[in-house]
Amino acid sequence: MIINYDEIVKQIIGEKLAKPQSGTLSGHAAGEPFDKFVYKAIKDIYPNNTFRNFEYLNYLYIKNPQATDYQSRINLLGSEVLSLLLSRGRQATINWTPDSQFVEKQNDTADIIFKNDSHFDIIDIKTRNMSIKGQAPNIISAYKLANAMKCMIDTNDFDKLDMVYIGIDWKLEGDHLVVKNTHVKSLFKTNPANLYINWAAAMQIQFHVQDLPQSYKFSKEQWAREYLTNFYHQAIKRANDMKKRFADYFEDYILD
Amino acid sequence: MIINYDEIVKQIIGEKLAKPQSGTLSGHAAGEPFDKFVYKAIKDIYPNNTFRNFEYLNYLYIKNPQATDYQSRINLLGSEVLSLLLSRGRQATINWTPDSQFVEKQNDTADIIFKNDSHFDIIDIKTRNMSIKGQAPNIISAYKLANAMKCMIDTNDFDKLDMVYIGIDWKLEGDHLVVKNTHVKSLFKTNPANLYINWAAAMQIQFHVQDLPQSYKFSKEQWAREYLTNFYHQAIKRANDMKKRFADYFEDYILD
Repeated sequence: MIINYDEIVKQIIGEKLAKPQSGTLSGHAAGEPFDKFVYKAIKDIYPNNTFRNFEYLNYLYIKNPQATDYQSRINLLGSEVLSLLLSRGRQATINWTPDSQFVEKQNDTADIIFKNDSHFDIIDIKTRNMSIKGQAPNIISAYKLANAMKCMIDTNDFDKLDMVYIGIDWKLEGDHLVVKNTHVKSLFKTNPANLYINWAAAMQIQFHVQDLPQSYKFSKEQWAREYLTNFYHQAIKRANDMKKRFADYFEDYILD
Repeated sequence: MIINYDEIVKQIIGEKLAKPQSGTLSGHAAGEPFDKFVYKAIKDIYPNNTFRNFEYLNYLYIKNPQATDYQSRINLLGSEVLSLLLSRGRQATINWTPDSQFVEKQNDTADIIFKNDSHFDIIDIKTRNMSIKGQAPNIISAYKLANAMKCMIDTNDFDKLDMVYIGIDWKLEGDHLVVKNTHVKSLFKTNPANLYINWAAAMQIQFHVQDLPQSYKFSKEQWAREYLTNFYHQAIKRANDMKKRFADYFEDYILD
């Protein structure tokens, strides 16, 4: 089954939201409700394949009542790398019961999970006010992604998941925010050596979805190794820069 | 002139704000307007000594129309360390004119400047919802403070400034936020070796004002050197931790 996200997402062009009563339109918060439109557009066509991150975990745990301890629940995801990206923390996972299920959480990795047999598209939605030249948004923790790539290599498990970013460009028109354009990009189709990691901003990878090149042609294993190489060298550079800027520079002033 | 901030600030106990229409009460934003009450309480008694950070710069530049280039304007503060802490950036300083003066800016170091002859108290106000066990707030960039302490030592200028933190504790009562308690603490009366630097949160020093010990008895020069020693060792530790956690850990996975 091949999903044409591009075509599905284009359907939300023209959708409107009432302008928020308060708060600025500069951050991403104003347009965030548009992600519900994307979810609905995909879910309408594929009702059995489309989940919110927390929904999928609830669905999985309800369907498997025999799995009650942490490890059994984590294993239900069927792959270590999926567990690493999609599951909740240890205590939350243990505490889950049918009567106290998971609810939406801002730092879940996925806005939407699309399950296609045993393959998962992990979909994240980034909304953008087109009228403002804003900073590139936080995409994912570079460290979390490094751990996921290491795990893929360790378990030789490269075909279980893709990571898809959907960009929603909106404009304020009168009293409404209106979707003007959409973009769909795959993380593994971009050259990992060129990803920008903002170390000062909690090590977040940052890019504007519309600007992400999609010309990478090599395997996912190669992607994982090139990404880890990039991360490794940037981490060393960052550590050395820190030492120079925040320690060496003050060395003559310190007490024994 | 000895200012009893403690007594002045206590006057705002009992002051009320209407509960905000939207937004949570967990962050510091809800109680932020209380800082205007503190400003007013001090300004009422000392109208010629009390300024907002931007106000003082406007006042200084208006009073000295002959100073038009960057360095002359910066020099008006009368001390390198004051310039470092209180002035705006180069471009903003050059662009200032009587017709386009500075306005309030969130990352100004001071909420209030209290000028006592050539001595400055740099006052920062932290409001807190007493009903919530919140995270300690960001106080100041540990790096900015390190540069200020280095500058104090370089210019042998230790008596020009103090840094004062005013804590305002409020509670939601019915439809109002009500001030229940206040705290006044001096940064240079706390042991700098015990300051917590949150490196992941943009190197911010973090503490709850009410919890800041005030038993440090040594000179400001000693404070500056002990602070820089703390900063230096933490920076080296942080750099080494980063190298271990973000580079060495992934070393076996990288490409040549």
